[in-house]
Amino acid sequence: MSRWEPNARGRLEQAALELYSERGFEQTTVAEIAKRAGLTERTFFRYFADKREVLFWGAGALQEFFMTNVASAPDSAAPIDAMAAALEAVGALFQERREGARRRQAIIAANAELQERELIKLARLSAALADTLRRRGVRDPAASLTAEAGIAVFRISFEAWISETSQRDLSQHIRESLDELKAVTAGK
Amino acid sequence: MSRWEPNARGRLEQAALELYSERGFEQTTVAEIAKRAGLTERTFFRYFADKREVLFWGAGALQEFFMTNVASAPDSAAPIDAMAAALEAVGALFQERREGARRRQAIIAANAELQERELIKLARLSAALADTLRRRGVRDPAASLTAEAGIAVFRISFEAWISETSQRDLSQHIRESLDELKAVTAGK
Repeated sequence: MSRWEPNARGRLEQAALELYSERGFEQTTVAEIAKRAGLTERTFFRYFADKREVLFWGAGALQEFFMTNVASAPDSAAPIDAMAAALEAVGALFQERREGARRRQAIIAANAELQERELIKLARLSAALADTLRRRGVRDPAASLTAEAGIAVFRISFEAWISETSQRDLSQHIRESLDELKAVTAGK
Repeated sequence: MSRWEPNARGRLEQAALELYSERGFEQTTVAEIAKRAGLTERTFFRYFADKREVLFWGAGALQEFFMTNVASAPDSAAPIDAMAAALEAVGALFQERREGARRRQAIIAANAELQERELIKLARLSAALADTLRRRGVRDPAASLTAEAGIAVFRISFEAWISETSQRDLSQHIRESLDELKAVTAGK
């Protein structure tokens, strides 16, 4: 008989991140994750298709959130400003999750297959944002270039934010990277 | 006894691209590629580790060529101008290979595993270019952002060049995309 387990997803995720950090992603089994979380394997598979999904289940929601924020910028906003507004919103979303983000990134950096998965996630996100911009009437190559620029700023800011010892906000890193991109493309 | 086969690499590559286009990448065997080229499987493996490598053996040389051109820009050149010069050189390199490039891209677009491989190739290229810029004294995040911008311009120009019915040069697409990126980041 199955019973309701409070915050099962969160407990499984926490247990998985701990084990991936301690033993490596490859060396961890679903049985071990479930045991550490005090739950059953069956409960694990109610939330995640496999152990990789623990690291990527948020990708769909992130993409949705990003697209919604690009789409809802004022009609008068230039493409880069719609992107900047979305990046700000995404930055605020992650702000309280720095420790988890740092741990997740270290796990991914240690495994080639996970790095590939992360690249695919970001490529999909970029394509989805380019589509969203096209629906705002932005033409190509401007739509694709703005989306790629936004993803580059996001990725580079994110890495700086989690690697740094300072306590700067992710949003601050994003603003600085975007300003830097503007300076760089202006030939500075 | 092995004998020297004139242009074996080129013949194998040509045969492989034909078969991947006709039957799909998955459905093609090395034996079939060798047969179509009028060569042996043994000869195939003298040039390529596996059938995927036929599509990616040029990645190392491309990276090298790209890096050399970024590195050899005048010391006074702004990072984006060093990148623009390298993109021009790469554009000229591909110019005569449009049919092959188009065929290769169609094969890759039809196969998820090959798409992943292509993403990894471009991510490596971007990291290598950021390193090259750092060696020129460019700091982060400017180095990473310039590299990412350059790869985005390259990828988007390349796609426009091979998909288009018009006969514009790759270099022309590259210049236009770069100008567009500058306009976009300037908020236009």
